[in-house]
Amino acid sequence: MADKEISQAVIGRLPRYFRYLGDLKEKGVERISSQELSDIMKVTASQIRQDFNNFGGFGQQGYGYNVNYLYDEISKILGIDKQHSLVIIGAGHLGKAIAGYTNFTRRGFVFKGAFDCNPELYGTKIRDVEVRPVDEMEDFVRKNQIEIAVLTIPKDQAVPMAHKLAECGIKAIWNFAHVDLEVPNNIQVENVHLSDSLMKLSYNINRYENT
Amino acid sequence: MADKEISQAVIGRLPRYFRYLGDLKEKGVERISSQELSDIMKVTASQIRQDFNNFGGFGQQGYGYNVNYLYDEISKILGIDKQHSLVIIGAGHLGKAIAGYTNFTRRGFVFKGAFDCNPELYGTKIRDVEVRPVDEMEDFVRKNQIEIAVLTIPKDQAVPMAHKLAECGIKAIWNFAHVDLEVPNNIQVENVHLSDSLMKLSYNINRYENT
Repeated sequence: MADKEISQAVIGRLPRYFRYLGDLKEKGVERISSQELSDIMKVTASQIRQDFNNFGGFGQQGYGYNVNYLYDEISKILGIDKQHSLVIIGAGHLGKAIAGYTNFTRRGFVFKGAFDCNPELYGTKIRDVEVRPVDEMEDFVRKNQIEIAVLTIPKDQAVPMAHKLAECGIKAIWNFAHVDLEVPNNIQVENVHLSDSLMKLSYNINRYENT
Repeated sequence: MADKEISQAVIGRLPRYFRYLGDLKEKGVERISSQELSDIMKVTASQIRQDFNNFGGFGQQGYGYNVNYLYDEISKILGIDKQHSLVIIGAGHLGKAIAGYTNFTRRGFVFKGAFDCNPELYGTKIRDVEVRPVDEMEDFVRKNQIEIAVLTIPKDQAVPMAHKLAECGIKAIWNFAHVDLEVPNNIQVENVHLSDSLMKLSYNINRYENT
Protein backbone atom coordinates (compact mmCIF):
# COMPACT_ATOMS: atom_id res chain seq x y z
CA MET A 1 0.00 0.00 0.00
CA ALA A 2 1.14 3.47 -0.88
CA ASP A 3 0.48 4.88 2.59
CA LYS A 4 3.26 2.82 4.14
CA GLU A 5 5.80 5.23 2.79
CA ILE A 6 4.09 8.36 4.04
CA SER A 7 5.89 10.29 6.78
CA GLN A 8 4.17 11.14 10.06
CA ALA A 9 4.55 14.83 9.16
CA VAL A 10 2.40 14.34 6.07
CA ILE A 11 -0.06 12.20 8.04
CA GLY A 12 -0.32 14.95 10.61
CA ARG A 13 -1.46 17.32 7.85
CA LEU A 14 -4.02 14.95 6.28
CA PRO A 15 -6.87 15.61 8.76
CA ARG A 16 -6.63 19.32 7.96
CA TYR A 17 -6.84 18.66 4.20
CA PHE A 18 -9.75 16.36 4.94
CA ARG A 19 -11.51 19.09 6.92
CA TYR A 20 -11.13 21.68 4.16
CA LEU A 21 -12.18 19.22 1.47
CA GLY A 22 -15.25 18.37 3.55
CA ASP A 23 -16.16 22.06 3.68
CA LEU A 24 -15.69 22.37 -0.09
CA LYS A 25 -17.82 19.28 -0.66
CA GLU A 26 -20.59 20.75 1.49
CA LYS A 27 -20.46 23.91 -0.60
CA GLY A 28 -20.84 21.86 -3.75
CA VAL A 29 -17.35 22.59 -5.11
CA GLU A 30 -16.34 19.80 -7.52
CA ARG A 31 -12.84 20.78 -8.60
CA ILE A 32 -10.10 22.82 -7.03
CA SER A 33 -6.58 23.73 -8.13
CA SER A 34 -3.64 23.45 -5.75
CA GLN A 35 -3.38 27.26 -5.95
CA GLU A 36 -6.98 27.78 -4.85
CA LEU A 37 -6.57 25.25 -2.05
CA SER A 38 -3.34 27.01 -1.09
CA ASP A 39 -5.17 30.34 -0.79
CA ILE A 40 -7.85 28.91 1.48
CA MET A 41 -5.54 26.81 3.63
CA LYS A 42 -2.63 29.25 3.86
CA VAL A 43 -0.03 26.68 2.91
CA THR A 44 2.01 26.82 -0.28
CA ALA A 45 0.67 25.17 -3.44
CA SER A 46 3.98 23.35 -3.70
CA GLN A 47 3.50 21.86 -0.21
CA ILE A 48 0.04 20.67 -1.24
CA ARG A 49 1.35 19.09 -4.46
CA GLN A 50 4.20 17.41 -2.58
CA ASP A 51 1.86 16.06 0.10
CA PHE A 52 -0.60 14.70 -2.46
CA ASN A 53 2.22 13.19 -4.53
CA ASN A 54 2.85 10.87 -1.58
CA PHE A 55 -0.23 8.97 -2.51
CA GLY A 56 -0.19 9.18 -6.23
CA GLY A 57 -0.96 12.79 -6.98
CA PHE A 58 -4.75 12.83 -7.26
CA GLY A 59 -4.74 15.54 -9.89
CA GLN A 60 -4.11 16.36 -13.50
CA GLN A 61 -1.97 19.26 -14.67
CA GLY A 62 -4.13 22.31 -15.36
CA TYR A 63 -7.25 20.47 -14.35
CA GLY A 64 -7.16 20.57 -10.58
CA TYR A 65 -8.25 18.04 -8.01
CA ASN A 66 -11.59 16.30 -7.95
CA VAL A 67 -12.88 17.26 -4.50
CA ASN A 68 -15.04 14.18 -3.93
CA TYR A 69 -12.37 11.78 -5.10
CA LEU A 70 -9.69 13.43 -2.99
CA TYR A 71 -11.97 13.47 0.04
CA ASP A 72 -12.72 9.77 -0.34
CA GLU A 73 -9.09 8.82 -0.91
CA ILE A 74 -7.91 10.72 2.16
CA SER A 75 -10.71 9.18 4.20
CA LYS A 76 -9.45 5.71 3.12
CA ILE A 77 -5.87 6.57 4.00
CA LEU A 78 -6.99 7.82 7.41
CA GLY A 79 -9.01 4.65 7.91
CA ILE A 80 -12.23 6.56 8.55
CA ASP A 81 -14.05 4.84 5.70
CA LYS A 82 -14.46 1.99 8.21
CA GLN A 83 -16.22 1.93 11.56
CA HIS A 84 -14.22 2.00 14.78
CA SER A 85 -15.88 1.11 18.08
CA LEU A 86 -14.87 3.05 21.15
CA VAL A 87 -15.46 3.19 24.88
CA ILE A 88 -14.95 6.17 27.14
CA ILE A 89 -13.34 5.57 30.49
CA GLY A 90 -14.15 8.46 32.79
CA ALA A 91 -17.71 9.77 32.50
CA GLY A 92 -17.01 13.30 33.73
CA HIS A 93 -17.45 16.46 31.72
CA LEU A 94 -14.59 15.69 29.34
CA GLY A 95 -15.88 12.17 28.67
CA LYS A 96 -19.35 13.57 28.08
CA ALA A 97 -18.03 16.29 25.78
CA ILE A 98 -16.21 13.70 23.67
CA ALA A 99 -19.20 11.35 23.54
CA GLY A 100 -21.31 14.25 22.36
CA TYR A 101 -19.27 15.11 19.27
CA THR A 102 -21.52 14.32 16.37
CA ASN A 103 -18.53 14.69 14.08
CA PHE A 104 -16.98 11.53 15.48
CA THR A 105 -20.07 9.50 14.72
CA ARG A 106 -20.15 10.90 11.20
CA ARG A 107 -16.58 9.76 10.73
CA GLY A 108 -17.24 6.20 11.74
CA PHE A 109 -16.31 6.29 15.41
CA VAL A 110 -19.07 4.43 17.19
CA PHE A 111 -19.53 5.13 20.89
CA LYS A 112 -20.35 1.80 22.53
CA GLY A 113 -19.67 2.05 26.25
CA ALA A 114 -18.87 4.39 29.14
CA PHE A 115 -17.24 3.50 32.44
CA ASP A 116 -16.60 5.30 35.68
CA CYS A 117 -15.67 4.49 39.26
CA ASN A 118 -18.24 6.85 40.75
CA PRO A 119 -21.33 4.80 41.81
CA GLU A 120 -23.53 7.89 41.49
CA LEU A 121 -23.01 7.79 37.74
CA TYR A 122 -23.84 4.09 37.25
CA GLY A 123 -26.97 3.74 35.16
CA THR A 124 -27.01 7.38 34.05
CA LYS A 125 -26.87 7.82 30.31
CA ILE A 126 -24.58 9.55 27.88
CA ARG A 127 -26.21 9.62 24.47
CA ASP A 128 -28.24 6.44 25.08
CA VAL A 129 -25.20 4.63 26.44
CA GLU A 130 -25.38 3.58 30.07
CA VAL A 131 -22.47 4.40 32.38
CA ARG A 132 -21.15 1.17 33.91
CA PRO A 133 -18.82 0.40 36.82
CA VAL A 134 -15.23 0.44 35.65
CA ASP A 135 -14.84 -3.16 36.91
CA GLU A 136 -17.00 -4.29 34.02
CA MET A 137 -14.73 -2.67 31.44
CA GLU A 138 -12.52 -5.66 30.67
CA ASP A 139 -15.40 -8.03 29.98
CA PHE A 140 -17.16 -5.44 27.89
CA VAL A 141 -14.11 -4.63 25.76
CA ARG A 142 -13.43 -8.32 25.12
CA LYS A 143 -17.02 -9.26 24.31
CA ASN A 144 -17.66 -6.30 22.05
CA GLN A 145 -14.22 -6.30 20.43
CA ILE A 146 -13.77 -2.62 21.19
CA GLU A 147 -10.95 -1.01 19.23
CA ILE A 148 -10.41 2.36 20.90
CA ALA A 149 -10.45 3.40 24.56
CA VAL A 150 -10.70 7.08 25.39
CA LEU A 151 -9.06 7.83 28.73
CA THR A 152 -10.54 10.82 30.49
CA ILE A 153 -9.45 9.88 33.99
CA PRO A 154 -6.79 11.31 36.35
CA LYS A 155 -3.19 10.46 35.57
CA ASP A 156 -2.63 8.12 38.53
CA GLN A 157 -5.54 5.97 37.33
CA ALA A 158 -4.57 6.15 33.67
CA VAL A 159 -1.34 4.15 33.97
CA PRO A 160 -2.85 0.95 35.51
CA MET A 161 -5.90 1.35 33.23
CA ALA A 162 -3.68 1.33 30.14
CA HIS A 163 -2.15 -1.96 31.30
CA LYS A 164 -5.60 -3.52 31.77
CA LEU A 165 -6.67 -2.29 28.34
CA ALA A 166 -3.57 -3.80 26.79
CA GLU A 167 -4.46 -7.15 28.36
CA CYS A 168 -7.96 -7.20 26.97
CA GLY A 169 -6.89 -6.57 23.40
CA ILE A 170 -7.59 -2.90 22.81
CA LYS A 171 -6.02 -1.57 19.59
CA ALA A 172 -5.66 2.08 20.48
CA ILE A 173 -5.80 4.53 23.36
CA TRP A 174 -6.82 8.15 22.97
CA ASN A 175 -5.24 9.53 26.10
CA PHE A 176 -6.37 12.75 27.75
CA ALA A 177 -4.65 12.00 31.07
CA HIS A 178 -1.67 14.20 31.79
CA VAL A 179 0.87 11.39 31.67
CA ASP A 180 2.75 9.42 29.01
CA LEU A 181 1.51 5.84 28.87
CA GLU A 182 3.73 2.81 28.48
CA VAL A 183 1.99 0.17 26.42
CA PRO A 184 3.11 -2.61 24.06
CA ASN A 185 4.01 -1.57 20.51
CA ASN A 186 0.90 -3.10 19.03
CA ILE A 187 -1.24 -0.50 20.79
CA GLN A 188 -1.47 2.91 19.17
CA VAL A 189 -1.52 5.88 21.52
CA GLU A 190 -2.53 9.41 20.66
CA ASN A 191 -2.11 11.94 23.45
CA VAL A 192 -4.07 15.11 23.98
CA HIS A 193 -2.14 16.89 26.71
CA LEU A 194 -4.26 19.97 27.28
CA SER A 195 -1.85 21.54 29.77
CA ASP A 196 0.98 21.32 27.26
CA SER A 197 -1.13 23.16 24.73
CA LEU A 198 -2.05 25.89 27.22
CA MET A 199 1.61 26.33 28.17
CA LYS A 200 2.57 26.82 24.53
CA LEU A 201 -0.08 29.52 24.36
CA SER A 202 1.35 31.15 27.48
CA TYR A 203 4.85 31.03 25.96
CA ASN A 204 3.63 32.71 22.80
CA ILE A 205 1.85 35.49 24.76
CA ASN A 206 5.07 36.07 26.71
CA ARG A 207 7.26 36.05 23.62
CA TYR A 208 4.99 38.48 21.80
CA GLU A 209 5.07 40.90 24.74
CA ASN A 210 8.84 40.77 24.91
CA THR A 211 9.49 41.49 21.24
CA MET B 1 16.31 37.45 26.27
CA ALA B 2 17.60 33.97 25.56
CA ASP B 3 14.18 32.60 24.64
CA LYS B 4 13.94 34.73 21.51
CA GLU B 5 16.28 32.37 19.73
CA ILE B 6 14.49 29.19 20.70
CA SER B 7 12.79 27.30 17.88
CA GLN B 8 9.11 26.33 18.09
CA ALA B 9 10.18 22.67 18.01
CA VAL B 10 12.11 23.13 21.24
CA ILE B 11 9.24 25.15 22.75
CA GLY B 12 6.87 22.35 21.86
CA ARG B 13 9.00 20.01 23.97
CA LEU B 14 9.31 22.31 27.00
CA PRO B 15 5.91 21.51 28.57
CA ARG B 16 6.87 17.83 28.62
CA TYR B 17 10.19 18.55 30.35
CA PHE B 18 8.26 20.75 32.74
CA ARG B 19 5.83 17.93 33.51
CA TYR B 20 8.58 15.41 34.22
CA LEU B 21 10.55 17.88 36.32
CA GLY B 22 7.38 18.62 38.30
CA ASP B 23 7.01 14.89 39.01
CA LEU B 24 10.66 14.67 40.10
CA LYS B 25 10.23 17.72 42.33
CA GLU B 26 7.19 16.12 43.97
CA LYS B 27 9.25 12.99 44.64
CA GLY B 28 11.92 15.13 46.32
CA VAL B 29 14.58 14.52 43.66
CA GLU B 30 17.10 17.38 43.76
CA ARG B 31 19.52 16.54 40.96
CA ILE B 32 19.27 14.52 37.80
CA SER B 33 21.73 13.75 35.02
CA SER B 34 20.74 14.06 31.36
CA GLN B 35 21.14 10.27 31.12
CA GLU B 36 18.70 9.63 33.97
CA LEU B 37 16.22 12.11 32.51
CA SER B 38 16.70 10.44 29.13
CA ASP B 39 15.80 7.03 30.62
CA ILE B 40 12.59 8.35 32.17
CA MET B 41 11.49 10.47 29.23
CA LYS B 42 12.53 8.11 26.43
CA VAL B 43 14.38 10.80 24.49
CA THR B 44 18.13 10.78 23.91
CA ALA B 45 20.41 12.44 26.45
CA SER B 46 21.94 14.38 23.58
CA GLN B 47 18.53 15.78 22.63
CA ILE B 48 18.02 16.89 26.24
CA ARG B 49 21.44 18.57 26.38
CA GLN B 50 20.83 20.29 23.05
CA ASP B 51 17.39 21.51 24.14
CA PHE B 52 18.68 22.84 27.45
CA ASN B 53 21.67 24.48 25.77
CA ASN B 54 19.17 26.76 24.04
CA PHE B 55 18.71 28.57 27.29
CA GLY B 56 22.16 28.46 28.73
CA GLY B 57 22.63 24.82 29.65
CA PHE B 58 21.39 24.68 33.24
CA GLY B 59 23.87 22.02 34.22
CA GLN B 60 27.46 21.29 35.12
CA GLN B 61 29.50 18.48 33.59
CA GLY B 62 29.31 15.37 35.78
CA TYR B 63 27.03 17.09 38.25
CA GLY B 64 23.65 16.93 36.59
CA TYR B 65 20.77 19.37 36.58
CA ASN B 66 19.31 21.03 39.65
CA VAL B 67 15.67 19.97 39.40
CA ASN B 68 14.17 22.97 41.22
CA TYR B 69 16.24 25.47 39.30
CA LEU B 70 15.44 23.86 35.95
CA TYR B 71 11.75 23.69 36.81
CA ASP B 72 11.69 27.38 37.73
CA GLU B 73 13.63 28.45 34.64
CA ILE B 74 11.36 26.51 32.30
CA SER B 75 8.33 27.95 34.07
CA LYS B 76 9.71 31.46 33.42
CA ILE B 77 10.37 30.69 29.77
CA LEU B 78 6.84 29.33 29.38
CA GLY B 79 5.46 32.43 31.09
CA ILE B 80 3.65 30.40 33.74
CA ASP B 81 5.45 32.13 36.59
CA LYS B 82 2.88 34.90 36.01
CA GLN B 83 -0.90 34.84 36.26
CA HIS B 84 -3.03 34.75 33.13
CA SER B 85 -6.74 35.52 33.32
CA LEU B 86 -9.08 33.55 31.10
CA VAL B 87 -12.71 33.32 30.13
CA ILE B 88 -14.48 30.31 28.69
CA ILE B 89 -16.92 30.90 25.86
CA GLY B 90 -19.25 27.93 25.62
CA ALA B 91 -20.40 26.51 28.96
CA GLY B 92 -21.14 22.99 27.76
CA HIS B 93 -19.36 19.84 28.91
CA LEU B 94 -16.06 20.76 27.29
CA GLY B 95 -16.08 24.25 28.79
CA LYS B 96 -16.89 22.77 32.19
CA ALA B 97 -14.18 20.13 31.85
CA ILE B 98 -11.59 22.81 31.10
CA ALA B 99 -12.76 25.07 33.92
CA GLY B 100 -12.43 22.14 36.29
CA TYR B 101 -8.75 21.42 35.66
CA THR B 102 -7.03 22.20 38.94
CA ASN B 103 -3.72 21.94 37.12
CA PHE B 104 -4.46 25.12 35.18
CA THR B 105 -5.09 27.09 38.36
CA ARG B 106 -1.86 25.77 39.85
CA ARG B 107 -0.03 27.01 36.77
CA GLY B 108 -1.32 30.55 37.04
CA PHE B 109 -4.30 30.37 34.70
CA VAL B 110 -7.12 32.13 36.54
CA PHE B 111 -10.66 31.34 35.43
CA LYS B 112 -12.60 34.61 35.59
CA GLY B 113 -15.70 34.30 33.44
CA ALA B 114 -17.95 31.92 31.49
CA PHE B 115 -20.33 32.81 28.67
CA ASP B 116 -22.98 30.96 26.74
CA CYS B 117 -25.90 31.75 24.46
CA ASN B 118 -28.24 29.27 26.16
CA PRO B 119 -30.51 31.21 28.59
CA GLU B 120 -31.02 28.07 30.67
CA LEU B 121 -27.39 28.25 31.72
CA TYR B 122 -27.39 31.93 32.75
CA GLY B 123 -26.76 32.22 36.46
CA THR B 124 -25.66 28.60 36.87
CA LYS B 125 -22.17 28.26 38.27
CA ILE B 126 -18.97 26.63 37.11
CA ARG B 127 -16.50 26.57 39.99
CA ASP B 128 -17.98 29.70 41.66
CA VAL B 129 -18.05 31.55 38.36
CA GLU B 130 -21.48 32.53 37.07
CA VAL B 131 -22.37 31.76 33.46
CA ARG B 132 -23.34 35.00 31.72
CA PRO B 133 -25.06 35.77 28.41
CA VAL B 134 -22.55 35.86 25.61
CA ASP B 135 -23.64 39.45 24.81
CA GLU B 136 -21.91 40.57 28.00
CA MET B 137 -18.59 39.06 26.91
CA GLU B 138 -17.08 42.14 25.28
CA ASP B 139 -17.68 44.45 28.24
CA PHE B 140 -16.41 41.83 30.65
CA VAL B 141 -13.22 41.15 28.70
CA ARG B 142 -12.45 44.87 28.41
CA LYS B 143 -13.20 45.72 32.05
CA ASN B 144 -11.30 42.79 33.48
CA GLN B 145 -8.44 42.92 30.98
CA ILE B 146 -8.83 39.25 30.19
CA GLU B 147 -5.84 37.75 28.39
CA ILE B 148 -7.05 34.38 27.15
CA ALA B 149 -10.39 33.27 25.67
CA VAL B 150 -11.13 29.57 25.50
CA LEU B 151 -13.49 28.80 22.62
CA THR B 152 -15.62 25.72 23.21
CA ILE B 153 -18.40 26.63 20.80
CA PRO B 154 -19.43 25.25 17.40
CA LYS B 155 -17.29 26.21 14.43
CA ASP B 156 -19.84 28.51 12.77
CA GLN B 157 -19.99 30.59 15.95
CA ALA B 158 -16.24 30.52 16.55
CA VAL B 159 -15.29 32.61 13.53
CA PRO B 160 -17.39 35.72 14.35
CA MET B 161 -16.54 35.28 18.04
CA ALA B 162 -12.81 35.43 17.28
CA HIS B 163 -13.36 38.75 15.47
CA LYS B 164 -15.22 40.19 18.46
CA LEU B 165 -12.49 38.99 20.81
CA ALA B 166 -9.87 40.63 18.63
CA GLU B 167 -11.76 43.92 18.87
CA CYS B 168 -11.91 43.88 22.65
CA GLY B 169 -8.20 43.36 23.10
CA ILE B 170 -7.82 39.68 23.90
CA LYS B 171 -4.20 38.47 23.75
CA ALA B 172 -4.76 34.82 22.99
CA ILE B 173 -7.37 32.30 21.90
CA TRP B 174 -7.31 28.67 22.91
CA ASN B 175 -9.47 27.27 20.16
CA PHE B 176 -11.35 23.98 20.47
CA ALA B 177 -13.71 24.72 17.57
CA HIS B 178 -13.11 22.59 14.50
CA VAL B 179 -12.07 25.50 12.30
CA ASP B 180 -8.94 27.58 11.70
CA LEU B 181 -9.43 31.13 12.96
CA GLU B 182 -8.25 34.22 11.15
CA VAL B 183 -7.15 36.85 13.63
CA PRO B 184 -4.62 39.71 13.60
CA ASN B 185 -0.98 38.77 14.19
CA ASN B 186 -0.92 40.23 17.67
CA ILE B 187 -3.32 37.53 18.86
CA GLN B 188 -1.83 34.15 19.66
CA VAL B 189 -3.91 31.13 18.71
CA GLU B 190 -3.43 27.58 19.89
CA ASN B 191 -5.72 25.01 18.34
CA VAL B 192 -6.90 21.77 19.86
CA HIS B 193 -8.56 20.01 16.96
CA LEU B 194 -9.85 16.84 18.60
CA SER B 195 -11.09 15.30 15.36
CA ASP B 196 -7.65 15.67 13.79
CA SER B 197 -6.14 13.81 16.71
CA LEU B 198 -8.70 11.00 16.49
CA MET B 199 -8.08 10.67 12.74
CA LYS B 200 -4.35 10.28 13.33
CA LEU B 201 -5.19 7.49 15.76
CA SER B 202 -7.39 5.86 13.16
CA TYR B 203 -4.60 6.13 10.58
CA ASN B 204 -2.16 4.45 12.93
CA ILE B 205 -4.58 1.58 13.70
CA ASN B 206 -5.02 1.07 9.96
CA ARG B 207 -1.33 1.23 9.22
CA TYR B 208 -0.50 -1.24 11.99
CA GLU B 209 -3.06 -3.72 10.68
CA ASN B 210 -1.66 -3.47 7.17
CA THR B 211 1.97 -4.08 8.11
